[in-house]
Amino acid sequence: MALASSVVGEEQPMEQRISIVTLGVKNLAVSRRFYVDGLSWKPVYEDKEIIFFQTGGMVFALFLRDKLAEDFQANPAAFGRAPMALAYNVRTKNEVDPLMRLAEAAGATVLKSARQATWGGYSGYFADPDGFAWEVAWNPNWRMTPDGSIHIPAPNKKSS
Amino acid sequence: MALASSVVGEEQPMEQRISIVTLGVKNLAVSRRFYVDGLSWKPVYEDKEIIFFQTGGMVFALFLRDKLAEDFQANPAAFGRAPMALAYNVRTKNEVDPLMRLAEAAGATVLKSARQATWGGYSGYFADPDGFAWEVAWNPNWRMTPDGSIHIPAPNKKSS
Repeated sequence: MALASSVVGEEQPMEQRISIVTLGVKNLAVSRRFYVDGLSWKPVYEDKEIIFFQTGGMVFALFLRDKLAEDFQANPAAFGRAPMALAYNVRTKNEVDPLMRLAEAAGATVLKSARQATWGGYSGYFADPDGFAWEVAWNPNWRMTPDGSIHIPAPNKKSS
Repeated sequence: MALASSVVGEEQPMEQRISIVTLGVKNLAVSRRFYVDGLSWKPVYEDKEIIFFQTGGMVFALFLRDKLAEDFQANPAAFGRAPMALAYNVRTKNEVDPLMRLAEAAGATVLKSARQATWGGYSGYFADPDGFAWEVAWNPNWRMTPDGSIHIPAPNKKSS
């Protein structure tokens, strides 16, 4: 059954949002052990190729990397360490160190132990089993709402 | 002034959320041209090293990749194509093709033209100037709220 091709109507903008973050992983059982058993994250769906987690209004996915490569028609041999990082911001500075320890106990590799950051906060980095970098950060300049959403305050205009 | 080391109190869980997605980019001006000029995304903060966008309750960052590498103490020579993808989900199938064209006009490379997906939706992939894969997806099985949040319905229990 042919589908009607899309109607070219008025231009829709691409809103400022990300719906899904998908990490390509080598071994789903290993990833599961880290995120589900280790960090106690609860999958909302899983099968042999993919695990989905509801993370607030978005979705975090762990997908076998060969399947992901196939999905966007990439050559998996070109994959390397991802030049990207995910961050998990906390409400108080005191949450950072215990979370770094929790991640380490779950099997993460500490990339950088938590320390004072030049931008005024306190943060550390760990790598998940596939080497994806996660920052655990306390940023006193950003506002966090009870649901964990973060909001960057608009910069103060300089008086001129 | 020494900061008190963190108090080891009761174990805090790592909530299921992502605060920031940071992509390490080679040239911030090129990235800016794509996301700001091309996709009309509005930075909430920018300097010579980093650009922050408020994306719903999270933050999307473009950061010079050498600075990012320094931040998590990685060797930038190990960076390769990121085995990950971001997805932007839309409300109706008809939004997919125009958004793929919009991205292409902004300088994206089409990795996979939009098509019917095996999972029942319709999607395509483009790469941003640094090769990061973005999927533009319509998924009729997921619920999207007016603010663009997506929610995976809990699976139906099989009767047994």
